[in-house]
Amino acid sequence: MTHDYRAPLPETLFLLNEVLDLDAVFALAPYQHLDLETAVVILEEGAKFAEQILAPTNTAGDERGSQLVEGRVITAPGFKSAYRAFADGGWSGIDLPLNFGGQQVPLVIQAAFSEMISGANLAFTMQPITQRAAAWLLAEHGVDDRAARLVEALATGRYGATIAISEPDAGSDVARVRTSALPHPDNSYRISGTKSWISFGDQDYTDQIIHLLLARTPDAPAGTRGISLFVVPRIDFETGIPNGVSVERLESKMGLHGSPTCTLRFDEAVGYRIGDEHQGLKCMFTMVNLMRLEVAFQGIGIAHTATDKASRYAHQRQQGGRPEEAATPIVEHRDVRRMLLRMQSRTKALRALVLDVAKHLDIARFHSDENIRAAALAFSEFMLPVCKSYSAESAFEIANEAVQVMGGMGFARAGGVEQHVRDCRVASINEGTTRVQRSDQVMRQLLRDNGT
Amino acid sequence: MTHDYRAPLPETLFLLNEVLDLDAVFALAPYQHLDLETAVVILEEGAKFAEQILAPTNTAGDERGSQLVEGRVITAPGFKSAYRAFADGGWSGIDLPLNFGGQQVPLVIQAAFSEMISGANLAFTMQPITQRAAAWLLAEHGVDDRAARLVEALATGRYGATIAISEPDAGSDVARVRTSALPHPDNSYRISGTKSWISFGDQDYTDQIIHLLLARTPDAPAGTRGISLFVVPRIDFETGIPNGVSVERLESKMGLHGSPTCTLRFDEAVGYRIGDEHQGLKCMFTMVNLMRLEVAFQGIGIAHTATDKASRYAHQRQQGGRPEEAATPIVEHRDVRRMLLRMQSRTKALRALVLDVAKHLDIARFHSDENIRAAALAFSEFMLPVCKSYSAESAFEIANEAVQVMGGMGFARAGGVEQHVRDCRVASINEGTTRVQRSDQVMRQLLRDNGT
Repeated sequence: MTHDYRAPLPETLFLLNEVLDLDAVFALAPYQHLDLETAVVILEEGAKFAEQILAPTNTAGDERGSQLVEGRVITAPGFKSAYRAFADGGWSGIDLPLNFGGQQVPLVIQAAFSEMISGANLAFTMQPITQRAAAWLLAEHGVDDRAARLVEALATGRYGATIAISEPDAGSDVARVRTSALPHPDNSYRISGTKSWISFGDQDYTDQIIHLLLARTPDAPAGTRGISLFVVPRIDFETGIPNGVSVERLESKMGLHGSPTCTLRFDEAVGYRIGDEHQGLKCMFTMVNLMRLEVAFQGIGIAHTATDKASRYAHQRQQGGRPEEAATPIVEHRDVRRMLLRMQSRTKALRALVLDVAKHLDIARFHSDENIRAAALAFSEFMLPVCKSYSAESAFEIANEAVQVMGGMGFARAGGVEQHVRDCRVASINEGTTRVQRSDQVMRQLLRDNGT
Repeated sequence: MTHDYRAPLPETLFLLNEVLDLDAVFALAPYQHLDLETAVVILEEGAKFAEQILAPTNTAGDERGSQLVEGRVITAPGFKSAYRAFADGGWSGIDLPLNFGGQQVPLVIQAAFSEMISGANLAFTMQPITQRAAAWLLAEHGVDDRAARLVEALATGRYGATIAISEPDAGSDVARVRTSALPHPDNSYRISGTKSWISFGDQDYTDQIIHLLLARTPDAPAGTRGISLFVVPRIDFETGIPNGVSVERLESKMGLHGSPTCTLRFDEAVGYRIGDEHQGLKCMFTMVNLMRLEVAFQGIGIAHTATDKASRYAHQRQQGGRPEEAATPIVEHRDVRRMLLRMQSRTKALRALVLDVAKHLDIARFHSDENIRAAALAFSEFMLPVCKSYSAESAFEIANEAVQVMGGMGFARAGGVEQHVRDCRVASINEGTTRVQRSDQVMRQLLRDNGT
């Protein structure tokens, strides 16, 4: 009925042109190859990709989902070719450095694109998110040629990647990671253990998948201070034969059916350490800000498309009014109008807020003045957890209100909005209250370390 | 993981024994064949039915759902035999009069049972609810022997029934019902039109299904005042051959997959008028109070079981604490405890409140003193819409909070609570704000009519 996605291009371009002062961003050293006009063209292309290539795969992702067939994941119908178009369009490495094959686009532009693909097909985005996160991890902490080659393979979409943190007994509680990494004479490690809740832990997009994984070396101290970061390829880099990584099962979930959530088993799999021993969690925090920004825009994407669909339905659906006259569109009923206006204003406010935070992250990373960098970082690190939590909650509430506006049709799959409620539900779980508190504590400890 | 249902027997019996004064109910003329001890035995049996017979069918209802095969609905695995046990146990006619084959149990006891079956398998309850509603409609407005025989067939579970109000262009807006009823020389009517969102519009429990349906006779005035009530059997009463009723399609929904939601087509189907011409909506209001009570207890049932499952999970699941010590059950984390206590207290308060309203409905119907009846009716009619809306909203919020408590496992189907979020979502839709306002208006108009 209202399954089609319409990107918020006018709203986003208004913010970029009129509200956010992006001259400051395009003046940063890495972004001088771009200007606002080019960024607008990028987002226009992004909107086309989201609307025409990605959105048509969303319903099949939900209804058919991914499957585990003979130990390998088969993604939902249409996902593989959408991924191919995504990689070919250069979107895989949109914000990654030019020298790694990326497009080196500022986060504020990348984030606006992220909103579009999230609204078009949230499940699909779980793969590019982890792929970019893995690439940034390797770009910042990998020191050898192999790491550089991996970043390029990820930036161009030739390789897939996962971030493998959780274990069956270590979900929110990273300190209890038990996966072991035994040193091998050739400087590699042998990784053994089980990792759970791994998004796109396997897929049929790419032959090679590299797992960025937390594990414990022998005699490592207990808790978070004994954890190191490793890269474990699905196919061994040296021999070209499959490594000791297998998919134990796929989770059956409330939503995000198009995103295969895997439990992975590692049996003496060959792995390579990234960064120093016992510094794994610290390395991971490289990507915390980027991930928070991503989740915030996932929520905005869902909020936008749910509001847009409910609004279109409310203009078409006719109910009520005097019985002897033609029925009126339900948008004319005050309570429906109130709900829609609230949904629209929340979505627009969130988008403006989080794009501004993205801009500050760009400045925090690349401004030439150390003081300006520090101020922008302080602002964005203060704002990001708030943006992330509030956006995740808002997306759920707004999608749920879209169901309410559409009534029975909202509860029906044919209405096209109940999927959004189910898909975005997990966003608030990933960052539950206890979890927020814990990572805040870790953040504080890390900051204290840096201070010594 | 925590799929099993545990009925709130201790909580309910505490309310019945210690809080609600039920002597007043068992003193009412129709209930003198019962006492509190018998009622307790009934509820103990009801809890066994809910826990042992009904709850085991809940997951199959969600995962397999009902299917439309060659024009007939096949219910989910296990539903048919659960229905047989339900009917054989005398639950179909629990509150219907003894002379119609019912058990003539007060609403306050029936409601407590309703909570149990709702918590065990919400989708299953959609059929008994409409069956009882149809039986009450026929018992109060049917005047001939056929009506009496139908009530008995419904009370004993031999026949199924539906309430067919909505049409594709008349959802919230009953005034726009267009299904036509042409008088036939033999005092019957020929019914033609399409009815949508009909719960258990077809099923494989019973050969005969009777549809209680709103339609318009020729030259009927526009709006709600031109609507009459008809009974349309699936199999013609006289000839024993299938009537002109067919299932056009099943809705695919966010939840309640075990409840087949049908679009039914009536092609010159033989129907019989119930009550006076143009008084159809007024007849329907017979059951408004009963339906509101039912929906309130559907919500309480879901709130109870979601809370119970989340609580058990929180006692088992271990996360956090000092890394060198054993992990602590998450129930010991303050934020988890806060959520659980809130969920429990809301559920218990709702149950106490709505059981008290059910008791007042019993008194409003059967007390010998007209003034006491009027006062009890005024109280319950004031409270019921509040109870219904608040219970529907609370159930959704509490089930959603259960997902939050359980984290990733809450989002996974294996956790057993995300289904509750999806199942109970429709309860707030059935009584959206606009809808409440409209039915309140109609109620007021009706009351005004009664006043003239």
